[in-house]
Amino acid sequence: MKLYHYILNSAGHRVRIALNLKGLAYESVLVDLRAGKDEQKAAGYLAINPQGLIPALEVDGSILTQSMAIIEYLDETHPSPPLLPKDPVARAQVRAFAQAVACEMHPLNNTGVLAYLSQGMGLDEKKRAQWYAHNIAKGFSSLEIMAARHADGAFAFGDTPTLADVLLVPQWGNARRYKCDITPYPRLAAIVSACEALPEFRDAAPDAQPGFAEIMAGR
Amino acid sequence: MKLYHYILNSAGHRVRIALNLKGLAYESVLVDLRAGKDEQKAAGYLAINPQGLIPALEVDGSILTQSMAIIEYLDETHPSPPLLPKDPVARAQVRAFAQAVACEMHPLNNTGVLAYLSQGMGLDEKKRAQWYAHNIAKGFSSLEIMAARHADGAFAFGDTPTLADVLLVPQWGNARRYKCDITPYPRLAAIVSACEALPEFRDAAPDAQPGFAEIMAGR
Repeated sequence: MKLYHYILNSAGHRVRIALNLKGLAYESVLVDLRAGKDEQKAAGYLAINPQGLIPALEVDGSILTQSMAIIEYLDETHPSPPLLPKDPVARAQVRAFAQAVACEMHPLNNTGVLAYLSQGMGLDEKKRAQWYAHNIAKGFSSLEIMAARHADGAFAFGDTPTLADVLLVPQWGNARRYKCDITPYPRLAAIVSACEALPEFRDAAPDAQPGFAEIMAGR
Repeated sequence: MKLYHYILNSAGHRVRIALNLKGLAYESVLVDLRAGKDEQKAAGYLAINPQGLIPALEVDGSILTQSMAIIEYLDETHPSPPLLPKDPVARAQVRAFAQAVACEMHPLNNTGVLAYLSQGMGLDEKKRAQWYAHNIAKGFSSLEIMAARHADGAFAFGDTPTLADVLLVPQWGNARRYKCDITPYPRLAAIVSACEALPEFRDAAPDAQPGFAEIMAGR
């Protein structure tokens, strides 16, 4: 398997966590999304994925896109350890938590949208910071309610990591990097701490990737 | 089953289509999202769903949220007709198409975000229309590429509707209602036509819901 991803892109971060939890080795291909590099729009990458999106996972000649779809693929083809519970209602609750990140938080605060708010909408740095913090607060407030209802385990849903934790940790990392206030979400903080105690999560983190220090120095 | 939804909310529209495709009867409870009504924030609804989100599906005392999670729940508990193929790679491709709508298009153009662009970001009507059209064009361009690779059936993936079609049709409806240019996406248009020929899709459409004319008259 070959993973096309970028160190700071949280959708790629999700897939790295899932691959680690499944114990799957992969070849890492970094696609540099930074303005001026734009490798996701270069001919070389478009030949692999015509949509120009990352992350993408190459498996047996197929290109899989969209991080949650990739993670469910990994869960279906490598069932142990499972990232979703067996009971249909419980599966729906774990997926709903994951989708509250993937369908409500991340889409609003990703690099492309922030660039368009500036270049297309003419918003200044201060307004964009307000936008970012607003979406984090709205999303995490909702997740904190969901998580508090399942506070009987170390992780978001029970005593082993699920798709919910895989989605939460990268979003939490973004909020920290953008210095958003994360103090109102103690249950989420406890879940993230439990995840970060595991090498599968630590090794997938942006700051554990080769090249991280160089990228941060250039920001 | 009891569905809490709103006629013009496309996430609820997705669930109505899925329920119809599965042939499942449901009790319909409308939650009026319009400014001034805000029934999703009223105490009555918060007692049902503390997150104040719609759609929500009540099943045997459980409240399920997030439309894709609800639809996968319906597919797992009522497998016929299937909304996902059996092959893991094909499942991932269908889910990726659905998520390209649910994680990249809809989150940017929903009612709450448009209201925040105006009230929080101070953008005028013209800028918001530009934002809306930009996100539609970006998303549909990407979906057209994905759909063109699977153009051997009437629907997005083959000869029966899948999760991909269930997500596409409401988003297409929004684009039409906002008078976005949809002429550059002939494959998507053909898929939508195939879907709209089915009563399961027609009966789930906003304009087939009681109260639609009244809502539109008030806009």
